[in-house]
Amino acid sequence: MADVTVIEVGPRDGLQNEKRIVPTDDKLALIALLRAARLPRLEITAFVSPKWVPQMADHEAVLRGTPPADGLIRSVLVPNERGAQAALAIGVEELAVFTSASETFARKNINCSISDSIGRFAPVAELARRNGVRLRGYVSCTVECPYEGPIAPQAAEDVAIALFELGCVEVSLADTIGRATPSGVDAMLTAVTARLPSARLACHFHDTFGHALNNIDIALAHGIGIFDSAVGGLGGCPYAPGAAGNLSTLPLVRHLENRGLSTGIDMARLKDAETFAARLRS
Amino acid sequence: MADVTVIEVGPRDGLQNEKRIVPTDDKLALIALLRAARLPRLEITAFVSPKWVPQMADHEAVLRGTPPADGLIRSVLVPNERGAQAALAIGVEELAVFTSASETFARKNINCSISDSIGRFAPVAELARRNGVRLRGYVSCTVECPYEGPIAPQAAEDVAIALFELGCVEVSLADTIGRATPSGVDAMLTAVTARLPSARLACHFHDTFGHALNNIDIALAHGIGIFDSAVGGLGGCPYAPGAAGNLSTLPLVRHLENRGLSTGIDMARLKDAETFAARLRS
Repeated sequence: MADVTVIEVGPRDGLQNEKRIVPTDDKLALIALLRAARLPRLEITAFVSPKWVPQMADHEAVLRGTPPADGLIRSVLVPNERGAQAALAIGVEELAVFTSASETFARKNINCSISDSIGRFAPVAELARRNGVRLRGYVSCTVECPYEGPIAPQAAEDVAIALFELGCVEVSLADTIGRATPSGVDAMLTAVTARLPSARLACHFHDTFGHALNNIDIALAHGIGIFDSAVGGLGGCPYAPGAAGNLSTLPLVRHLENRGLSTGIDMARLKDAETFAARLRS
Repeated sequence: MADVTVIEVGPRDGLQNEKRIVPTDDKLALIALLRAARLPRLEITAFVSPKWVPQMADHEAVLRGTPPADGLIRSVLVPNERGAQAALAIGVEELAVFTSASETFARKNINCSISDSIGRFAPVAELARRNGVRLRGYVSCTVECPYEGPIAPQAAEDVAIALFELGCVEVSLADTIGRATPSGVDAMLTAVTARLPSARLACHFHDTFGHALNNIDIALAHGIGIFDSAVGGLGGCPYAPGAAGNLSTLPLVRHLENRGLSTGIDMARLKDAETFAARLRS
């Protein structure tokens, strides 16, 4: 067993935020390289409307092209019941839903209030339960919001609790714009872990301002052992063209292994995946 | 439509002849990269006994891990009816059978006479027909044999005819040890194409002595437009450790494209596959 679990979100969160539309076969090759690197959990696509997210228009082909494997959890992001049904019809191990700790970010990003988003997820949670698949919740802007500025720790805590009550087995707390400092992350995690078990929390950091690895250390100190990252830093930063976005998987894994924390990941193969991911960005 | 069809045999013929046992996920990553490079036909594994060929022991996992795709022909080598049934139960587009133009090579390599091998393929051919999948035949040592030396063109011709009569839609004529010279290939192809349509013949050259691309030119002159190759030259030469074996896909495709013959292959992605294949050898 690994000490820490690294969730690879490059094929979805990463590629969704790249301007370039990556061909399906290139996505499947990237996913295969990540599997060869023994990433145990892959967020591979989003069952969203191609009108809103053309980068994920091939979600059915990507899921069909990624067959199940022992020890692999294939996760797909779904915005609503319809997306969940379509994903389940093909077969997945996990559905993921996405909301925010910031009301303004929720309205701008998913076009509804936070509480409306949770309501919209209720039938998704019911489908996950009935089909025996995991449900994962994302909370964006848990520390900083591009519109509202600092977010109160209480807001992140409330949304995380609502997602667990919905039926999530894990909630990922995100610093969506990379502006969170270690002290901000510390305050947020102090609030959230006071009410929720750290073993069921993940953190999702962006490295836009170089804080990601420091924030990982804060999260480790709070007992969190599940981290999201994107191979090759895929995704960039939607608010600052050219700037780093998602924490890159290779530096994350190196950082963890340097601390003596095993990840179970094959570094040589991860480098192959990083090299390939870099080519997909250009 | 491409002018010339390149059959990628690296994952099977290549990896079967490497000493190192490559992990399944690495094979799947290689196959995914080859698909991203738009290789239209992939020989992905062999349904043979792991006792005889431990390199292919994961044949079921490799086939299951390579889902069907539009425009892709997944080929697997089968030595007998049992292998064919197992492959068909999972799903393939092509079964391939392997014999020789050299009696001695047949006895040493597949442990029976040439005519016995054809007899053993009859139920395989029947299964292919009933299941509507392609049947491909390989003839090894069509020009030179490591045991017998030069092979009479008549011998290659007879075996190729027997394979077509069996029900093969294509027969691949191999220079298994790379010792065939252009004049030897010319004599063999003159004999075979006098009796069989060149459109249903393929050539499979080894580059051990640097003759492969010259032999390709001879084959092109005989109207042959289907060539086998192995990404990164996987497979080496079973008779000369460290020496080149299978013709490498990248130089083959470059050679063809330089002659103005289109292959439909994405060169940038093929380079990615070559880079990855090279890492699997070490």
